[in-house]
Amino acid sequence: MSSPTASPEPLPASPDDEEDRAVGKLFAVLLAGEYAAFYRLIDESSMAPDIPSGIAIARMAASEIAHFELLAEQVSRRGLDPADSVERYRAVFDQYHRATTPRTWLEALVKAYVGDGLAADFYTELSEMMPPVAQRVVAAVMAETGNSQFAREQVTAAIAADPALRSPLTLWGRRLLGEAVTHAQWVLAAEEGVTDLLFSGAASLNGVADFFDSITARHAERMSDMGLG
Amino acid sequence: MSSPTASPEPLPASPDDEEDRAVGKLFAVLLAGEYAAFYRLIDESSMAPDIPSGIAIARMAASEIAHFELLAEQVSRRGLDPADSVERYRAVFDQYHRATTPRTWLEALVKAYVGDGLAADFYTELSEMMPPVAQRVVAAVMAETGNSQFAREQVTAAIAADPALRSPLTLWGRRLLGEAVTHAQWVLAAEEGVTDLLFSGAASLNGVADFFDSITARHAERMSDMGLG
Repeated sequence: MSSPTASPEPLPASPDDEEDRAVGKLFAVLLAGEYAAFYRLIDESSMAPDIPSGIAIARMAASEIAHFELLAEQVSRRGLDPADSVERYRAVFDQYHRATTPRTWLEALVKAYVGDGLAADFYTELSEMMPPVAQRVVAAVMAETGNSQFAREQVTAAIAADPALRSPLTLWGRRLLGEAVTHAQWVLAAEEGVTDLLFSGAASLNGVADFFDSITARHAERMSDMGLG
Repeated sequence: MSSPTASPEPLPASPDDEEDRAVGKLFAVLLAGEYAAFYRLIDESSMAPDIPSGIAIARMAASEIAHFELLAEQVSRRGLDPADSVERYRAVFDQYHRATTPRTWLEALVKAYVGDGLAADFYTELSEMMPPVAQRVVAAVMAETGNSQFAREQVTAAIAADPALRSPLTLWGRRLLGEAVTHAQWVLAAEEGVTDLLFSGAASLNGVADFFDSITARHAERMSDMGLG
């Protein structure tokens, strides 16, 4: 045992320790997001009109659990408990899902496709600002595809068959983006270490704004993929 | 092109073709079972009291989707459509689940543990009666563990804390077995090719009875693992 010192100050954490703690927190946030997304997706799938849709939803759910497992391992390695992490951060994701509860199967499909894409965008943007070891984790999560192409195809076909659906679904897509950005900002604002990790680079004076601009641009492409916007 | 013959009889299928068709049908039945189990498990997990339970349920659900994917590939290889297969056979599984809807989280846990074990037993018993190529598929499905140990631990702990739970949960476990056997017999009776595949060996005069005896014996062991029976 080392002898106690008289100094009242805690030892300053090394920059690496601090960075690793912030990465752990960020992964804990993402873990809670995957947990919420899994249960919400299944819940919303109760509107699925047929077995092929039910199978497609089950496949998306499986890839969310695969993401969850990858992140849970990383969170545990950094001394955090996965269940506690979900507990700590899930409220904001549950709130996002409550604010974006689909009323129809088509709204559920748009949400699935947009949500899957937004999650992938967040992971991509985040990964560019992360230390290399964390980047590899994010790349592994991303490599597990979200299986949401079926949603895009069904929405495109539905709009082709009934063009009157286009305008309300476009508004719905905008609302999904707005709520996602709002809730993401809440999470970032609540966890200072995470914000510092992501937006403290020399070129990042406009970091937060650029981050959301880039996500907005890719969202517009995705809406257009579905024949919306 | 071969010249048409005058013979009105269809060519007799080779024994291998017939066997392969029966294997395909059996896998289609199991596929429908995994599909029903996935959605039912998630549904019943709405009673989960905390995040660790929710995580454990998500892991069981993931292994059901993994089983589903393995079986779907085998079904497709034999010229059957996975979605059609689920459509064709899911009614009997839905009926089983309706007949065994848990009213409490503990009943849901007993059902999860017993159901996971019964499924594994069915797979094991079936595999012993199958041609080698099909045995390898079943072994691959089984290698994906069901992650149901958490359920056994929670039930054991609950009974230790409140021994009055033991008797009603024992009855519940018996009912689960009874309904599972009844519904399995309905499936087998409806698909003659499958019954022949499984119970046509020379030593199989008592095949069906032995099959269910063996499953009943292992069910008793599992009940006793949970402190029931």
